[in-house]
Amino acid sequence: METMVNNISVEKATTSKINEVDFDNLSFGSVYTDHMLVCDYVNGAWQSPKVVPYQPISLDPSAKIFHYGQSIFEGMKAYKDESGKTWLFRPLENHKRLNKSAQRLAIPELPESHFMDGLTTLLQVEQDWIPQNPGSSLYIRPFMLASGKGFHASPADEYKFIIACAPSGAYFSGKVKVLIEEKYSRAANGGVGYAKAGGNYAGQFYPTQLAIEKGYHQVIWTDDNTHEYIEEAGAMNIFVRINDTLITGPTSDRILDGITRKSILQIAENQGIATEVRKISVSEVVAAAKNGSLKEMFGAGTAAVVSPIAAFGYKDTDYELPELENSYASQLKKYITDVQYNRSEDKFGWRYPV
Amino acid sequence: METMVNNISVEKATTSKINEVDFDNLSFGSVYTDHMLVCDYVNGAWQSPKVVPYQPISLDPSAKIFHYGQSIFEGMKAYKDESGKTWLFRPLENHKRLNKSAQRLAIPELPESHFMDGLTTLLQVEQDWIPQNPGSSLYIRPFMLASGKGFHASPADEYKFIIACAPSGAYFSGKVKVLIEEKYSRAANGGVGYAKAGGNYAGQFYPTQLAIEKGYHQVIWTDDNTHEYIEEAGAMNIFVRINDTLITGPTSDRILDGITRKSILQIAENQGIATEVRKISVSEVVAAAKNGSLKEMFGAGTAAVVSPIAAFGYKDTDYELPELENSYASQLKKYITDVQYNRSEDKFGWRYPV
Ligand SMILES: Cc1ncc(COP(=O)(O)O)c(C=O)c1O
Ligand SMILES: Cc1ncc(COP(=O)(O)O)c(C=O)c1O
Repeated sequence: METMVNNISVEKATTSKINEVDFDNLSFGSVYTDHMLVCDYVNGAWQSPKVVPYQPISLDPSAKIFHYGQSIFEGMKAYKDESGKTWLFRPLENHKRLNKSAQRLAIPELPESHFMDGLTTLLQVEQDWIPQNPGSSLYIRPFMLASGKGFHASPADEYKFIIACAPSGAYFSGKVKVLIEEKYSRAANGGVGYAKAGGNYAGQFYPTQLAIEKGYHQVIWTDDNTHEYIEEAGAMNIFVRINDTLITGPTSDRILDGITRKSILQIAENQGIATEVRKISVSEVVAAAKNGSLKEMFGAGTAAVVSPIAAFGYKDTDYELPELENSYASQLKKYITDVQYNRSEDKFGWRYPV
Repeated sequence: METMVNNISVEKATTSKINEVDFDNLSFGSVYTDHMLVCDYVNGAWQSPKVVPYQPISLDPSAKIFHYGQSIFEGMKAYKDESGKTWLFRPLENHKRLNKSAQRLAIPELPESHFMDGLTTLLQVEQDWIPQNPGSSLYIRPFMLASGKGFHASPADEYKFIIACAPSGAYFSGKVKVLIEEKYSRAANGGVGYAKAGGNYAGQFYPTQLAIEKGYHQVIWTDDNTHEYIEEAGAMNIFVRINDTLITGPTSDRILDGITRKSILQIAENQGIATEVRKISVSEVVAAAKNGSLKEMFGAGTAAVVSPIAAFGYKDTDYELPELENSYASQLKKYITDVQYNRSEDKFGWRYPV
């Protein structure tokens, strides 16, 4: 049965899976809600988005997604406050970045209203799925894929935009040990590293598996030419605190312009923490680790929020980070999650009601 | 109804689309045969491949192919000789390269027998689809995709290996005009450029569209660091003839180790053509174009065979290549296609009967 909600067609699932879910023990992104948003690009235009029951996607074997990796995605979260009201965090930034990725991957850009109306309608339908437990949220995955057919290596003529949701707990359990990469790389100059293109992630799996086998959780990528500069991690931008200055690398065409990263820079400045946006060399970090001026390293991203790094490995040596009371990481994490969960004033206008 | 052919289960399509196809006017890779091969990786092992009717692939919205571009492919052709017998060209090389790509993309490697038995059985079932018209062949597309679920950016636990086929004509119609790229790039040092990873291709679409808008057919990629060295084209390795020497760049972790490329090097050496495998700088090519020593440029790949380049653009200038009688490109193309279509002796043992 189809109804209209906010001008979006909604076809409700006949049964719900929600009672099968243990909301007290959520892993990350592995159970999916009852509905999804689907929007098709056909005949040169994005059609009306629809909320439909969560269901398999059926594509011709020649669909270009299968052959040429023409796909992009976003990662967002919906947060429920103590009164049960739902909030998003800077969702228009995700829409803008989706379209930046779309352009680089030769995918037609999606109008803002398709994105925002589709998203908020889906979240209204799925409101019971948004966890209220501390540290949990509804992870939201908007993605676009080339459904058009053909073995010719050229852009597809049809696409699908989909939003699926997964109630989720923490991305990392505990502190993170990272390996600074010396051989493999994630992105080329003039490449697609700044886009959330699917292929950027598959390329990281093998080097990351090698790092995991050595006892690390995650690779820190360095520039592909010299491997001398720290760029970012799998799904996080990287911050380094040397003495009392918080440093992060500049964005470039190799690095994703993270929304958490730029929010943290703004919060830090507002809190009177000295910040620098500049290239960070591995030798600087190693020297600072040796002389004790390296106080903290942490990753920042929607999924991982602010994830303190306990140690990093480089050229067969491990460097431990000190355990600080009242670290920048914990201060900044508290600040940002307090905004996200509507526990504090929203000075920057980042909260968005659903 | 299921039967066993060469120990492979074959489920025949109940109707055929073959009468709808105009074999005299085939484009490239846009009509598909009646059957496909499907092989699933589940519970830690590749299961038995099966020939089934060509049909949509149905995947969960959280399948990792949609999010992380975990996919690889190959490109091959089946050639029918005058007596109606079908041949492949160095198919074991495709299997080896598929597994090289699989390793880099953290996909489990496929046993040779699954590949070869599946492929030859599919081609036996589809033998009426293999064109006999000159210049036409059956384009074969083996591919693997991550069907396993999850929004965590890590390798999938389930995969599909599929072979689909498309009777095809020429990839390019006529001579090709290329643009030497100065800004965008295709591959990073330490990246996945040497693998046939889906994401490598989507990343090329936008820069290639920009080149097409300027009147070119194809981009010639240069190294991402200096843009001073010619690497390869979208789906072809590149050869340059300066005076009477045939030059191609060395393979690296940025460049696909093309089967056509290495076959051409071997043919050229055997024919007494001087060859060099070394870095080719753009300035050398431009200088040679200016002083008249640049005789030919051509692309080499399974889809495009040997494709002469008529002109190249660089820094807003176009350089025309001369029209030669008895060019290396035409000699080499004749040699390789004579082997492929069983019109000549197979000195190197490259032909493979189906
Ligand atoms: C490569 C990469 N870097 C950084 C980030 C962090 O970006 P954001 O804070 O917008 O989630 C992500 C995740 O989205 C990512 O995939
Ligand atoms: C990037 C790239 N380079 C070169 C080639 C040519 O390789 P092959 O001769 O094995 O078809 C291809 C096509 O397979 C390709 O995709």
